[in-house]
Amino acid sequence: MKRIAILGPGLLGGSIALGLAHIPDLQIRMWGRRVEVLQEASASGIASFTSTNVQEVVDGADTVILCVPVGVMRGLIQDALPALSPDALVTDVGSVKKSVVDELAPLLHGKALFVGSHPMAGSEKAGLSAAKKDLFHRTVCILTPEAHRTPPQAIEKARVLWETLGCRVRTLTPEVHDRVCAQISHVPHVAAAALVNMVSEMEPEAFGFFGAGFRDTTRVAAGLPSMWSEILLTNRDAVSSGLRGLISQLESVLTILEQDDRSATAPLEAFLSAAKERRDRLHLS
Amino acid sequence: MKRIAILGPGLLGGSIALGLAHIPDLQIRMWGRRVEVLQEASASGIASFTSTNVQEVVDGADTVILCVPVGVMRGLIQDALPALSPDALVTDVGSVKKSVVDELAPLLHGKALFVGSHPMAGSEKAGLSAAKKDLFHRTVCILTPEAHRTPPQAIEKARVLWETLGCRVRTLTPEVHDRVCAQISHVPHVAAAALVNMVSEMEPEAFGFFGAGFRDTTRVAAGLPSMWSEILLTNRDAVSSGLRGLISQLESVLTILEQDDRSATAPLEAFLSAAKERRDRLHLS
Repeated sequence: MKRIAILGPGLLGGSIALGLAHIPDLQIRMWGRRVEVLQEASASGIASFTSTNVQEVVDGADTVILCVPVGVMRGLIQDALPALSPDALVTDVGSVKKSVVDELAPLLHGKALFVGSHPMAGSEKAGLSAAKKDLFHRTVCILTPEAHRTPPQAIEKARVLWETLGCRVRTLTPEVHDRVCAQISHVPHVAAAALVNMVSEMEPEAFGFFGAGFRDTTRVAAGLPSMWSEILLTNRDAVSSGLRGLISQLESVLTILEQDDRSATAPLEAFLSAAKERRDRLHLS
Repeated sequence: MKRIAILGPGLLGGSIALGLAHIPDLQIRMWGRRVEVLQEASASGIASFTSTNVQEVVDGADTVILCVPVGVMRGLIQDALPALSPDALVTDVGSVKKSVVDELAPLLHGKALFVGSHPMAGSEKAGLSAAKKDLFHRTVCILTPEAHRTPPQAIEKARVLWETLGCRVRTLTPEVHDRVCAQISHVPHVAAAALVNMVSEMEPEAFGFFGAGFRDTTRVAAGLPSMWSEILLTNRDAVSSGLRGLISQLESVLTILEQDDRSATAPLEAFLSAAKERRDRLHLS
């Protein structure tokens, strides 16, 4: 019987366990810091072996998935190291990849097969109780191998894992991954939070009149502050650069609005049309 | 038989017609600039009388609803004036109210019962073909009477109209309405367009990796550029003030990100937590 070790019983760890539950001859093992959460995982059948001792959990595991905040990954892997099998795949679900890969790859070199993963699934809800078996269905998972360093077997094993969970698998270098995610996820997250805080400070009465537009535009602002704070700080260079780009876009609109209607209409429509054309090409409802 | 005149066969005009179609003894009359669109409205049974002559359309109408861009409302009402009944309700669906009320109220004083309306329903789709009978269901419609000037019968008639269409009716002065909508709708629209344009200019490859967060955060950017350009320019003072507020929020995050992790974590979590708490209180999924 194969063993998979999921380190971290949260939304992502729990959803991975549920998404793999249908596979025969696979034992799902789960590590967590808090006994109560592990008992919940056992009681609900999400995992068949649980422990707060990471070496016990990774023992004999063919695949080890880090589903903890990126700041605690290194310490956890150091604890697990003596019990890892050299041909086990170790991967993670961190939303930021350069720092994770820089920390974990040297540590695991020759000790296990490591490649970074970023399954682009999530929810503004958190915790094991929010886990669901189809969380990854039809989402993209980005693998971030390092050129000439990541073992091809690591990439292949990780690809099979994520495809089994329903992901389309793509590959980027860790650096490009972090720039892409700053643009598509981290800066939009800050923008959503900034919009809510702007209304709170400038015109709180306006919350009483929100519609579908405001609801959708700010949905991600309900995400977990501690998790997002860590993501933004870990990816601070790309996030700062994106924020400066966003501010510059907003300032260009401010400049247009300072002109009279006759001069302003063409550049304002051009700004909005460029956005609409690009947004429409995402081919989404 | 009562007559209602809908001036403008677009998404909102068409949806009002469809939403009132079940009312017995009500004739729906529609004005439009283009004969083909009016023929479509007739052929599909949306309106039972149509004309490109606005006086013919408002003749004998108990209610007249302006569903055209705010920039052409004054000219259209001037054309319609000789045929308006003094006890007819005239209202509009413009997203900006101060300029509309300032223009139309004096023109209609003693000639018809006028109050501004803003049904907060819409879609990034436009045109008669996107109209649907439940577009207004459970949305908010803001009436914007002027203190001591708007006839109470105008407010009462408008309230009944919008409640018949399924709206919850609220009341604000035109000035407060415009500030509220800048915050809750116009600035978020610019932010969504700015996010898309930022990615286009900085990291277009990132569009290939968007997820549900980016999709929702930028959805409104697919709105009609000509319509939104007019809204932003008509409400430029409140929009500019909101944009400066948003930029200041984003700059506060940039400042936090310049510090080291230890100093940055608490203020960054505080920024994100304030947004999350306020967003959660909207009580939305």
